[in-house]
Amino acid sequence: MITVLTGGTGGAKFVDGLRQIIPPDELTIIVNTGDDLKWWGLSVSPDIDSILYVLADLLSNERGWGFKGDTFLCLQTMAQYGESDWFKVGDRDLAMHILRSKLIAEGKTLAEATDVVTKKLGITARVLPMSNDKVETRIQTPAGELGFEEYFVKRRYQDEVLSVRFAGAEAARPAPGVLDAILTADAVVLAPSNPVTSIGPILAIADIRQALRETSAQVISVSPIVGDAAVSGPAAKLMTSQGLPVSIEGIAKAYEDFLDALVVDVTDAERGTRLARPELRVHSTNILMRSAEDKVNLAGEVLTQVTARAESNHR
Amino acid sequence: MITVLTGGTGGAKFVDGLRQIIPPDELTIIVNTGDDLKWWGLSVSPDIDSILYVLADLLSNERGWGFKGDTFLCLQTMAQYGESDWFKVGDRDLAMHILRSKLIAEGKTLAEATDVVTKKLGITARVLPMSNDKVETRIQTPAGELGFEEYFVKRRYQDEVLSVRFAGAEAARPAPGVLDAILTADAVVLAPSNPVTSIGPILAIADIRQALRETSAQVISVSPIVGDAAVSGPAAKLMTSQGLPVSIEGIAKAYEDFLDALVVDVTDAERGTRLARPELRVHSTNILMRSAEDKVNLAGEVLTQVTARAESNHR
Repeated sequence: MITVLTGGTGGAKFVDGLRQIIPPDELTIIVNTGDDLKWWGLSVSPDIDSILYVLADLLSNERGWGFKGDTFLCLQTMAQYGESDWFKVGDRDLAMHILRSKLIAEGKTLAEATDVVTKKLGITARVLPMSNDKVETRIQTPAGELGFEEYFVKRRYQDEVLSVRFAGAEAARPAPGVLDAILTADAVVLAPSNPVTSIGPILAIADIRQALRETSAQVISVSPIVGDAAVSGPAAKLMTSQGLPVSIEGIAKAYEDFLDALVVDVTDAERGTRLARPELRVHSTNILMRSAEDKVNLAGEVLTQVTARAESNHR
Repeated sequence: MITVLTGGTGGAKFVDGLRQIIPPDELTIIVNTGDDLKWWGLSVSPDIDSILYVLADLLSNERGWGFKGDTFLCLQTMAQYGESDWFKVGDRDLAMHILRSKLIAEGKTLAEATDVVTKKLGITARVLPMSNDKVETRIQTPAGELGFEEYFVKRRYQDEVLSVRFAGAEAARPAPGVLDAILTADAVVLAPSNPVTSIGPILAIADIRQALRETSAQVISVSPIVGDAAVSGPAAKLMTSQGLPVSIEGIAKAYEDFLDALVVDVTDAERGTRLARPELRVHSTNILMRSAEDKVNLAGEVLTQVTARAESNHR
């Protein structure tokens, strides 16, 4: 059993590889909900959607988000009505938001709604929101405090980041099944997602972070950083705002209280980047997922680390 | 000032003609909301939408309902998720339902939400729902009681109609402005809409029917019946269920307590159909709206009846 913690596009790409080499019923995905927003009054969970679409083979590979081959006529019409249109909801994608909103209005939790949709899509992997409680990633900038999607999509992550907070995280409880999935897995994999705003909100729920410290499962992170830059998105800026070096060292530091193994890019291994924790096992491979083959290969490399631990336990 | 009572597709066509010959700010449209429904959790007002689209020149002329040139990808996707798809919501049309639902969720009444949308569409005519209170047209059939759209769209009005009721009508109050628009108009025109389920729900609100009896404005109905058949839709079956003859006599009877003039088709005049109320002024013209020109001509013919009354008052 493999449990994956994920957010954003890097995580979705990684899960795309993983689903092709692991039987889906052996896979549990715990998803960041810090980006969730009300959009036109509808309940939108961008990271859950990316994972659902990738597992159902519906994700647009061109865009890395949203429904493949989607059109945007409703969005255009909303814009004509003077409504906001910076969050790009496609016509097919809308079905997900409408359905989720309906299920939640009927009294279902986010986890229950996600479970219903997962089954409707024929997905046999388990997809869990990190929490049924509202946790909002808030980005402090010189222009004021912004919701994550506002910072990321509307303002194209150009603002200086002063700090980041996860509003509601202190009171939030893990969704049912989350702790168990961490405590009973063979391995827990932190997808190559932004450690601050994709994995960070999940870890901001104290019981989840504690479960990662306590689990006997191997905890493996795939670095979203190569050299001194993020593979994509605003991770570098966000890490700097948290006092983390933008390097694999920063990733190791972000997860220092529970990480067993770190999968880094071959170029970082060649550079001989040193990590402060010598007990951390480091495995290097090509972590850039440019092609479908890259995704499957990276997933395979990560699984060798699970096997490696299992074998070393047997010795 | 002209006030129109309307529902359905025939009413929308008639308003399409009227808007082209009357300055829109002299036009108030009171719209049936008995067909309103929750669809996928969204607040849908089919008759209001038809009127808004026709006034904004956005109505699909091919279909007679919905947004012109619309696509149906969200609907297809909802069907793939196992959700109902018999009510044909287009992708552009969805914007209206999402926006209305959002406004209502924010605490606006249906009339206030309609006013907001009307202004966003650049419409200067006044569009009023008959009521802010929920009034539901319910059709009793051998298969059970059905909502109007379920009877009309999903089951293609094939069920035998045992009776019709307007749930909520007794307690419903007219929306703000409705009574005033009837009492102060130069003329009140009942569009060529089904007298039972399009105009009927409006008249089921006692204060509205009373205002029609009291107003000094001329009250004119355009017949939706030619000979012994409805121009379109289930009006004949529904009239029969109410004990009304399917003829212009039935229309005269349905409105007998307030009607001043009835505009009928030339073929009914040629047939010499007699009406029981000799004081009712009857004007005949081509009431079939097959072309854009027909719509404008019919609107013009109806307006001559307003003028005729005004002139006879002066004598």
